[in-house]
Amino acid sequence: MSKSEDTEKSEHTEKVEQMEKKGQYDVLHRLSNTLASRRNADPESSYTAQLFAGGPDSILKKIGEECAELIMAGKEGKRLKIVWESTDVVYHLMVLLAFYGLGAEDVLQELRRREGISGIDEKKSRGAGHHHKKAKDDHK
Amino acid sequence: MSKSEDTEKSEHTEKVEQMEKKGQYDVLHRLSNTLASRRNADPESSYTAQLFAGGPDSILKKIGEECAELIMAGKEGKRLKIVWESTDVVYHLMVLLAFYGLGAEDVLQELRRREGISGIDEKKSRGAGHHHKKAKDDHK
Amino acid sequence: MSKSEDTEKSEHTEKVEQMEKKGQYDVLHRLSNTLASRRNADPESSYTAQLFAGGPDSILKKIGEECAELIMAGKEGKRLKIVWESTDVVYHLMVLLAFYGLGAEDVLQELRRREGISGIDEKKSRGAGHHHKKAKDDHK
Amino acid sequence: MSKSEDTEKSEHTEKVEQMEKKGQYDVLHRLSNTLASRRNADPESSYTAQLFAGGPDSILKKIGEECAELIMAGKEGKRLKIVWESTDVVYHLMVLLAFYGLGAEDVLQELRRREGISGIDEKKSRGAGHHHKKAKDDHK
Repeated sequence: MSKSEDTEKSEHTEKVEQMEKKGQYDVLHRLSNTLASRRNADPESSYTAQLFAGGPDSILKKIGEECAELIMAGKEGKRLKIVWESTDVVYHLMVLLAFYGLGAEDVLQELRRREGISGIDEKKSRGAGHHHKKAKDDHK
Repeated sequence: MSKSEDTEKSEHTEKVEQMEKKGQYDVLHRLSNTLASRRNADPESSYTAQLFAGGPDSILKKIGEECAELIMAGKEGKRLKIVWESTDVVYHLMVLLAFYGLGAEDVLQELRRREGISGIDEKKSRGAGHHHKKAKDDHK
Repeated sequence: MSKSEDTEKSEHTEKVEQMEKKGQYDVLHRLSNTLASRRNADPESSYTAQLFAGGPDSILKKIGEECAELIMAGKEGKRLKIVWESTDVVYHLMVLLAFYGLGAEDVLQELRRREGISGIDEKKSRGAGHHHKKAKDDHK
Repeated sequence: MSKSEDTEKSEHTEKVEQMEKKGQYDVLHRLSNTLASRRNADPESSYTAQLFAGGPDSILKKIGEECAELIMAGKEGKRLKIVWESTDVVYHLMVLLAFYGLGAEDVLQELRRREGISGIDEKKSRGAGHHHKKAKDDHK
């Protein structure tokens, strides 16, 4: 990478690169593994084991609650709170995935698949709607 | 890594490792960047540009809707649908983050911070509640 | 009713009494009947007929969306908007009830039943939690 | 009312008429008044007083949670559970209204207003969308 490119690099990009060096992205992988291992743990042993023991209903109720809190944080516009509540949503979403034997990788693969089809955020054009519709129908 | 360890390696772990080789985790990074660049795009240019133009309310309304669909998928227990709806939630959550100049890294860092404090899924013990409470109060 | 009682009567109470005179409460009854009659209508004929045709998923998705909008209105604290969004939630809730052959009366009867058991808003006391828990388990 | 009309009367209608005789609809009025009187009660005195003390956030979080439970009940299609969860949503919605000095009457009046404009469930026709849009913009 040339010097000039380096200078142009945004702060954001640098933060990401530093994280990659530290293997920060692995947290999703580690969390998926941890949750998978808690799947049948004693409900008394941890908060998450308790959620698992309560079945999908207890997890989904919690997702609804966290989603409401995210919406409130989004209205307030306080960035620290938004990150906090987003993390809560992601965490409980991963608990749901783990309950069904799924993990973060499955969501990341789906994101990649969509990226391949539409460049993630599909340009509006004739047929764009159909594309989306088609993708949407894939899973039914 | 020795041969025997290799044999023990779960299918799941292998899938993850393959993804890492392909840089699959980077999709979050790429998506964060793409969304940041759409922040002020012409609302006519894409679905996401339209969401941004609608402000937090349009994004949050969509999060509520996707969350409802995830809850429905969770009740049905169909894994493909759960992955699909989880991806929809994650996508719109990242749109919200981008709206406020945030990205996936901020959520991953928060997950790591919690991991550091509690091993992600805190063991239940005397004081565990206080720990959580304290963490919860951090952001207020 | 004596003169003095009359003077003490709050504006709120007067508004309610006027509404009762006009049979305002009947709107729930009329709406229940209207919705029941739309249950199998041509989806092209009205917005609600379309919701019915889409089945529970389309109704529940809409409930999730309206609930998100109510949460946003609640954060803003604008009273006109809160009434508007509450009405949207109630309307779609009644569509759901109608889909399952239920009506406003069923919810009002349940409110009365709880009123009979706990005075609606149960006083906190030893055992109050158990009472609620018991009531909660009734319907399972 | 003639005999023949009487025979045709649906079971549903009869149930409603019986309720009206008993003043069943008044439960909304009574609940509005009860909630208004709890607005500044000691948080220790009741569940609802505690919600009020927690401010809009605690009420809205609860609405999100109850809404999630209603969505789950709607997926299951068990009528007793749907009535139960609908009642929970209505109850907490009325707590929100009371927090802002509003009551069931305000929602009923809005339902009547819409009924007057569109026959509640607007027929689809040229301009129907505009009508709705206009009504929607009223409150902004």
